[in-house]
Amino acid sequence: MTEDKLLYTGKAKNVYQAENDDEVLIVYKDQATALNGKKKEILPGKGVLDCQISQIVFNYLIENGIKTHLVKNLSDHEQLVKKTQVFPLEVVLRNITSGSLVRKFQIEEGQKLKEPIIEFYYKSDALDDPVINQSQIHALGIADNEDIEYIKQETLKINQLLIPFFAKADFDLVDFKLEFGKYNGEIILVDEFSPDNCRIWNKNDHHSMDKDVFRKHEGNLVETYQTVLQRLQDK
Amino acid sequence: MTEDKLLYTGKAKNVYQAENDDEVLIVYKDQATALNGKKKEILPGKGVLDCQISQIVFNYLIENGIKTHLVKNLSDHEQLVKKTQVFPLEVVLRNITSGSLVRKFQIEEGQKLKEPIIEFYYKSDALDDPVINQSQIHALGIADNEDIEYIKQETLKINQLLIPFFAKADFDLVDFKLEFGKYNGEIILVDEFSPDNCRIWNKNDHHSMDKDVFRKHEGNLVETYQTVLQRLQDK
Ligand SMILES: Nc1ncnc2c1ncn2[C@@H]1O[C@H](COP(=O)(O)OP(=O)(O)O)[C@@H](O)[C@H]1O
Ligand SMILES: Nc1ncnc2c1ncn2[C@@H]1O[C@H](COP(=O)(O)OP(=O)(O)O)[C@@H](O)[C@H]1O
Ligand SMILES: [Mg+2]
Ligand SMILES: [Mg+2]
Repeated sequence: MTEDKLLYTGKAKNVYQAENDDEVLIVYKDQATALNGKKKEILPGKGVLDCQISQIVFNYLIENGIKTHLVKNLSDHEQLVKKTQVFPLEVVLRNITSGSLVRKFQIEEGQKLKEPIIEFYYKSDALDDPVINQSQIHALGIADNEDIEYIKQETLKINQLLIPFFAKADFDLVDFKLEFGKYNGEIILVDEFSPDNCRIWNKNDHHSMDKDVFRKHEGNLVETYQTVLQRLQDK
Repeated sequence: MTEDKLLYTGKAKNVYQAENDDEVLIVYKDQATALNGKKKEILPGKGVLDCQISQIVFNYLIENGIKTHLVKNLSDHEQLVKKTQVFPLEVVLRNITSGSLVRKFQIEEGQKLKEPIIEFYYKSDALDDPVINQSQIHALGIADNEDIEYIKQETLKINQLLIPFFAKADFDLVDFKLEFGKYNGEIILVDEFSPDNCRIWNKNDHHSMDKDVFRKHEGNLVETYQTVLQRLQDK
């Protein structure tokens, strides 16, 4: 790994060029950030947990026909993945009201939505990840309408797979964030799926078992993620 | 008018119950506001100009098959209109980059978009009119998907009619805001179309001939609106 070239250093992971031109190596870091990087902390053990949880979720999605970037896991905190042209978009799907939706529209938290909400955010640290809509994405040349439609449909499909998946481990899947990239003209799921990028609540006591524990100082984040991993493995 | 019941007092107009149950009277005020009402000024003559300009635009749209609330003009600043259930949405269409789009995405002002952008804002003074997207509008029960699709199509149609209409008076139609309401189950165009709710730039010198004159202290707003009315009447 020493001779690999660092392509990008992110808030949760570093990305290195792999041996094959069309692959990259993702290395998970022991770091938690919130408020778009303004709050930051080193948390030993976190990188391994994110990587393991993401691996379980991605493997399940792959088994169920979702195309993803995952090539193979190289260690407990390193993944070899297809190198894609990532759309600079965070695709958020919500099943239950929480977070910014609740703040923005002053609605009650924890309400089941009659249909999932999908939101797009333009990934730009400089602009603070502003909300962006479909016609803006298209008109500003970020993705064309056909690609956006595909991404929306794929996100809904992933949601339909993940709701029962997390339910079996006694979690409600409240919301999550995905990223997509293009590989040989095909749109595939990239990045990670961990409690850093979703809200999962215990079915019984509705406790947050995700990054909200860190955002709201509700307990030990690493222990929480350990529990999540355990319950996903045991289910 | 003295016996009419005041139903709503807005930032630019007052709304009274008319004699017929299914009609209301809109009375234009001599007032300009910006920053969602935080900046406010009395400008004698403005109400008449807004009303006259809106009347010209609505009549042109009606002649071209757009369904609107307009019943008749009662005076130079009063209109009788169909009483509708207004969707609490501001529907914004952009042909050229300006305003909040430029600020939010740090793009250059005055760029012609390859396709119009449509944005929705949730009309709520308390929440400061937040951006809202189609799936939020639907999931929060503000309008169903079919209604939103119709509103988008109607907004695009209105744009195709208004671009040449303003071009004949030597204006570029940069962007505009519409409102829609339901009347007997049918969605129709309501509210007003005046330089308060659109951006129109002189084709030759690109000067703003709209409320930006007030927002940016660029000159005399009433004189500007007078010029707009004159040029729409003369074309
Ligand atoms: N398959 C892939 N190909 C290329 N880039 C990817 C792939 N998967 C994830 N990425 C990118 O790698 C970075 C992962 O690091 P992360 O710490 O999450 O970054 P950030 O702080 O920008 O969210 C992200 O920018 C993500 O978009
Ligand atoms: N045909 C209509 N039926 C019912 N309400 C209408 C109709 N046309 C416009 N309105 C509403 O009347 C009000 C007009 O006053 P205005 O000063 O523009 O209010 P605001 O400050 O809320 O924008 C708006 O709330 C608008 O939605
Ligand atoms: Mg990330
Ligand atoms: Mg208004």
